[in-house]
Amino acid sequence: MTATGIWLIGARGAVGTLTIVGARAIARGMLEPTGLVTELADLRDLALPPLDSLVFGGHELCDRNLVESAREFRNKAGLLTEETIQALARDLEEVDSDIRPGIGSGAHPVGPRAKIDAIQRDLRSFQQRRALNHVVVINVATTEALTEERPEWGTLADLRQALDKDRAEVFPTSLVYAYAALDAGYAYVNFTPSVGASVPALEELARERYTVHAGRDGKTGETLVKSTLAPLFAHRNLRVLAWEGYNMLGNRDGEALRDPHVRGAKCKSKDRALRSILGELGHSSVHIDYVPSLHDWKVAYDFIHFEGFLGAKMSMQFTWQGCDSALAAPLVLDLGRLSAFSQRRGEVGVLRHLACFFKDPLGVEVHGFTEQFRMLRRYAAAARERPTIHA
Amino acid sequence: MTATGIWLIGARGAVGTLTIVGARAIARGMLEPTGLVTELADLRDLALPPLDSLVFGGHELCDRNLVESAREFRNKAGLLTEETIQALARDLEEVDSDIRPGIGSGAHPVGPRAKIDAIQRDLRSFQQRRALNHVVVINVATTEALTEERPEWGTLADLRQALDKDRAEVFPTSLVYAYAALDAGYAYVNFTPSVGASVPALEELARERYTVHAGRDGKTGETLVKSTLAPLFAHRNLRVLAWEGYNMLGNRDGEALRDPHVRGAKCKSKDRALRSILGELGHSSVHIDYVPSLHDWKVAYDFIHFEGFLGAKMSMQFTWQGCDSALAAPLVLDLGRLSAFSQRRGEVGVLRHLACFFKDPLGVEVHGFTEQFRMLRRYAAAARERPTIHA
Amino acid sequence: MTATGIWLIGARGAVGTLTIVGARAIARGMLEPTGLVTELADLRDLALPPLDSLVFGGHELCDRNLVESAREFRNKAGLLTEETIQALARDLEEVDSDIRPGIGSGAHPVGPRAKIDAIQRDLRSFQQRRALNHVVVINVATTEALTEERPEWGTLADLRQALDKDRAEVFPTSLVYAYAALDAGYAYVNFTPSVGASVPALEELARERYTVHAGRDGKTGETLVKSTLAPLFAHRNLRVLAWEGYNMLGNRDGEALRDPHVRGAKCKSKDRALRSILGELGHSSVHIDYVPSLHDWKVAYDFIHFEGFLGAKMSMQFTWQGCDSALAAPLVLDLGRLSAFSQRRGEVGVLRHLACFFKDPLGVEVHGFTEQFRMLRRYAAAARERPTIHA
Amino acid sequence: MTATGIWLIGARGAVGTLTIVGARAIARGMLEPTGLVTELADLRDLALPPLDSLVFGGHELCDRNLVESAREFRNKAGLLTEETIQALARDLEEVDSDIRPGIGSGAHPVGPRAKIDAIQRDLRSFQQRRALNHVVVINVATTEALTEERPEWGTLADLRQALDKDRAEVFPTSLVYAYAALDAGYAYVNFTPSVGASVPALEELARERYTVHAGRDGKTGETLVKSTLAPLFAHRNLRVLAWEGYNMLGNRDGEALRDPHVRGAKCKSKDRALRSILGELGHSSVHIDYVPSLHDWKVAYDFIHFEGFLGAKMSMQFTWQGCDSALAAPLVLDLGRLSAFSQRRGEVGVLRHLACFFKDPLGVEVHGFTEQFRMLRRYAAAARERPTIHA
Repeated sequence: MTATGIWLIGARGAVGTLTIVGARAIARGMLEPTGLVTELADLRDLALPPLDSLVFGGHELCDRNLVESAREFRNKAGLLTEETIQALARDLEEVDSDIRPGIGSGAHPVGPRAKIDAIQRDLRSFQQRRALNHVVVINVATTEALTEERPEWGTLADLRQALDKDRAEVFPTSLVYAYAALDAGYAYVNFTPSVGASVPALEELARERYTVHAGRDGKTGETLVKSTLAPLFAHRNLRVLAWEGYNMLGNRDGEALRDPHVRGAKCKSKDRALRSILGELGHSSVHIDYVPSLHDWKVAYDFIHFEGFLGAKMSMQFTWQGCDSALAAPLVLDLGRLSAFSQRRGEVGVLRHLACFFKDPLGVEVHGFTEQFRMLRRYAAAARERPTIHA
Repeated sequence: MTATGIWLIGARGAVGTLTIVGARAIARGMLEPTGLVTELADLRDLALPPLDSLVFGGHELCDRNLVESAREFRNKAGLLTEETIQALARDLEEVDSDIRPGIGSGAHPVGPRAKIDAIQRDLRSFQQRRALNHVVVINVATTEALTEERPEWGTLADLRQALDKDRAEVFPTSLVYAYAALDAGYAYVNFTPSVGASVPALEELARERYTVHAGRDGKTGETLVKSTLAPLFAHRNLRVLAWEGYNMLGNRDGEALRDPHVRGAKCKSKDRALRSILGELGHSSVHIDYVPSLHDWKVAYDFIHFEGFLGAKMSMQFTWQGCDSALAAPLVLDLGRLSAFSQRRGEVGVLRHLACFFKDPLGVEVHGFTEQFRMLRRYAAAARERPTIHA
Repeated sequence: MTATGIWLIGARGAVGTLTIVGARAIARGMLEPTGLVTELADLRDLALPPLDSLVFGGHELCDRNLVESAREFRNKAGLLTEETIQALARDLEEVDSDIRPGIGSGAHPVGPRAKIDAIQRDLRSFQQRRALNHVVVINVATTEALTEERPEWGTLADLRQALDKDRAEVFPTSLVYAYAALDAGYAYVNFTPSVGASVPALEELARERYTVHAGRDGKTGETLVKSTLAPLFAHRNLRVLAWEGYNMLGNRDGEALRDPHVRGAKCKSKDRALRSILGELGHSSVHIDYVPSLHDWKVAYDFIHFEGFLGAKMSMQFTWQGCDSALAAPLVLDLGRLSAFSQRRGEVGVLRHLACFFKDPLGVEVHGFTEQFRMLRRYAAAARERPTIHA
Repeated sequence: MTATGIWLIGARGAVGTLTIVGARAIARGMLEPTGLVTELADLRDLALPPLDSLVFGGHELCDRNLVESAREFRNKAGLLTEETIQALARDLEEVDSDIRPGIGSGAHPVGPRAKIDAIQRDLRSFQQRRALNHVVVINVATTEALTEERPEWGTLADLRQALDKDRAEVFPTSLVYAYAALDAGYAYVNFTPSVGASVPALEELARERYTVHAGRDGKTGETLVKSTLAPLFAHRNLRVLAWEGYNMLGNRDGEALRDPHVRGAKCKSKDRALRSILGELGHSSVHIDYVPSLHDWKVAYDFIHFEGFLGAKMSMQFTWQGCDSALAAPLVLDLGRLSAFSQRRGEVGVLRHLACFFKDPLGVEVHGFTEQFRMLRRYAAAARERPTIHA
């Protein structure tokens, strides 16, 4: 059996840690694959890389090892048991040996050109050392501050020119990683609202290098509910007068979101889905608050005010209480498996059929969750019939 | 312009009253058609009977007239204004002249045979007097007690034999009305959980008489939300451990539901949708309580307990606060228009594409609301291409 | 029977209008006195001015009359019926004849000195014209922007000096009204978070003029619940880790609160009660959003995260859905009656026993609602025994 | 330092286990005393038995030991860590050695007389073996089925006669334990809704034996919130039209409550508090459902419909999500300490000042939680001044 590499940017953050721990626990038969979309009946029979064939590595700014990171998570979020952590200690140590310092850590050179080179060396060395068929690079790092759009992102030629001149201001960190991955021919997935590969120049790059990418911003909580629920109002011709969303977060993401620039990035992609499904929308807002005591748990409260027949004003409220990283981690595994599959199958560019995984799906205008899931199901049916594209 | 008749069983109940008041208010340009599915972009261009061409009549047990019924609703539920009621007083009086005593009222003979004859006389007289092209009979009466299934309902031959013998125990009231309508060649819609035309014998009858029917139990509140939301859990491979639903109702329906036999009928159809979408479902229950102070308003609270990756137990709650009759009335108009359209188009038997309107859709196993709506949209596309079936 | 004047600053706003409409409707036997604290068994037998002896007047910036204001409220908030409004039309017209242009309206001169004189002329003329024993001036106007505290507010001598120099920057509008009322010997109540009589100089003034005042910021919704509920956690030694409050408002107050300076004033007094009851409080925030479709209705959602025995993290959530002005108006009547009573009884200065009516009660450190209500009950018992103070 | 015995009926149930584990963890400095009322500033300086002087024993039907019971709780409810359990393993083993088979276990004789003798032997042997000054017997067993009231419970003479005749039908299990404890001169606390010492005959017995008792039904969740919140409506003269409470439980208590007889006992005491505070109450109901996936967690949802000024209909909802046993256990310690204190101080009969701990406080008509807490605070002040009663 050939192995597939999953390279996580932010490997020892909460999402990264749970992704690795969960994959190993399922591989060792210690856990059910609950929460994994790729284990649903509709997708299970595709020739996806098996969970126990995934080999993990990544970049990380933080020093502590995976066992420590898992323990911290257990203490704060109340998930994982000491028994599980101990049973996987060896596996986690092995992964630790494949985790390299992140490019913001000072261990790397300063300019974008040199950073890209360093990242590509790390990726290639990982692939060779572990004899991996493919590597999928997945961004699960903390959201970076919202950067203003740059004209140089418009075409690959312009971006390359800026790179030749080593113009740091054109290259936010997430773009550096995305460029490095795609340029080296690796698949790239952006699970965060950061820029990543969402700009036209990187779509060009992916096509030039015959590789694939997907993004952005994993749809794990409030937006998942919103994009499932909003069609109800649209299909019943009920006028949504107001949709107010309040998110309470206690993890590093929540802390980062105290910075209004970071929050801007997040709220923007959260609001887009709603307006796209409902068309007319009286008033809407998305609030994000940092509530430290919640740690990795998230509470979202939404109030929906709507008008029906005869002008009747009615309302719906929901509260979503979930463990953010436990909702994200299985999707990271799904995206890794599905991207590796697409890459091997010969697809290129953005993977539109993965829209159901993202708040702000690249290249897709469908935002209703059920519709998006149909796209994935149809893709699976097509791929089953035609396992290779370039033949 | 030819007119279409809408014959409401329970014409002066809350749903009946709002259906008639709303249709007239929209026809006179006093109200927006908010809440009408047939006014959505996807359906608007079908050649449905226009709202201002609908002529209303019906059966009713209660004596007070429509203006009184509208005022009672206004006082108790806080919807409708005195100005609206006064502006429509003439229209409502005209409808009153087409409302006949219901068959349970003592004004009618006792046996099913005689009742059916009486109903058919009322329907034919309505059609002739008002020069109507078609009549759609719609059951919006209070839910009847759950009747045990009868073997005679299995085939039309058996049912006719029981009718010849005038065996009252075989014919619950809702079945009498449905039989009368279909046997006379009129379309029939069952908006309640009562038996109506849901039995095989009546499907046979509809086909024999070249007419159509649809049902049952209008999907207006909690079940609408449930059937929209449940696919989220299914498509994300999240295990629903418990789904507990609590419904508080203050209207006559709520009062009727204090009777455990009536409640049985309602809860059964509410639970079915959920189990069908989720497959595995740990625990689930549906409670219905009568809370008189709510009058026509309904509050539903659902608690959903689910398990995700790494065994994380998470939860979602929602509260739905709606005016029950204001949610139902536009759907009654939609069903009237769509059934008249199908009848004229030459369709026969149960109208499967109307599944999205019902908690317990006849002849359809699809319960997810978004999927059901796609069925309606596909039907509209097909009907646009092929306006008549028997040509 | 001698009459008592209630002079409302902001007489035709939603609170002002409902106060007047409600008082007249109860006086005419058309309504139950639900919501009036002064009609509780504990207070009913005090010799308070009867509801039908209250005579209303006030200041107002807006032109439309009370009937129009009542109709606007009916249309937008769904309260009041046309029948009630018509039955009270005469009474409302009579009150309209006692409403004068507010001092911000341009009809008045510019300096604080001249404004105070003008207000006092209006008040005295009202008292004489209507032959009133007492007048209570109550601020129910829209919240003014948060003003920085001024050193001149510290003593009456300093404030008078600033007044002599006509220094406008020392006198926010609410202070002008409060000064005018107390200086003329009238009781003053501040139902808003504006400055009003909350500064030491005005307490001095009230004592000098032998009159009374009370404030500030009527406790009608979320804070009422908070201050009732918080003792639960305190008395059970449960550590509140976070208390997050989200307020959605659709009325003019909500609109004014879009201005961060105005919001500052409101949130500050909302947070104070909580910290005072709980002592230690991990994290807390109060958000106010303007949701226009709610009109006069308010939705407050609070999430309370707390820790119990063995470090168990638990939570409570509540949603409060109320008609803001309908919650405020009866309290305005209560405060008018109780202040008139205190003034007549010979009390002077701030009325501490009215703490239960306010978010930010002057001169009182007790914030728990039940404790505050005991203070009122004890006062009533004492006042029953000793009807006059200066004998 | 003299030691105090705490004898738990149901020692290895969830509440019993957490009580013992928590007391030892605090005694060993491993945990903060969060959740303990007796550690509040108002009570801390009473001469209560210190937490580390409490010695535990009890009766139990179940075989597994305390470490196993603690581990089961950890696995299912996600509270307690393996580290804590291991650190306390020795302490727990020692307590295990003082746990005796319960009287329903078959190890005991059948008649009430013999059972009482057996229990008293166990209690006296515990006191002597551990050299305890006092013993407090606390019922934390699963709720027993609601028994019809017996005439023999009315006086001690009648009850003794029934005991002499060994009439089992007069003695439900909880009454047997209560009788045994009080008759032997030990303090008794009933934390469950079972009969216990709530009958007149046992109050007589307590007084005859110069001992104390308290009960019944620990107020830990929904009723705690209700009895804190209801005064808000009463003190503001708001009419509560409906108060609907829905409780979801997953523990053995929830399972037992599936039996309608057991549920009857629970719902009765839950409803009483509300009616007593509100006086008039339109409609109210209390539902209890067994939702196994919640294990020891409890979710309560309450909907409160109320009417205010001008007939405005408003509503409040709350959701309480707590770990039932973690809410109960510290109160068990509080009640043990406070009862031992009262017994030593020379009090006799029912301890009315403990009303704030119970849903259905014996001998007290005050149900508002804040009022009840004032009773406890006043008691503490009085006891500080007068440490011994009989001097």
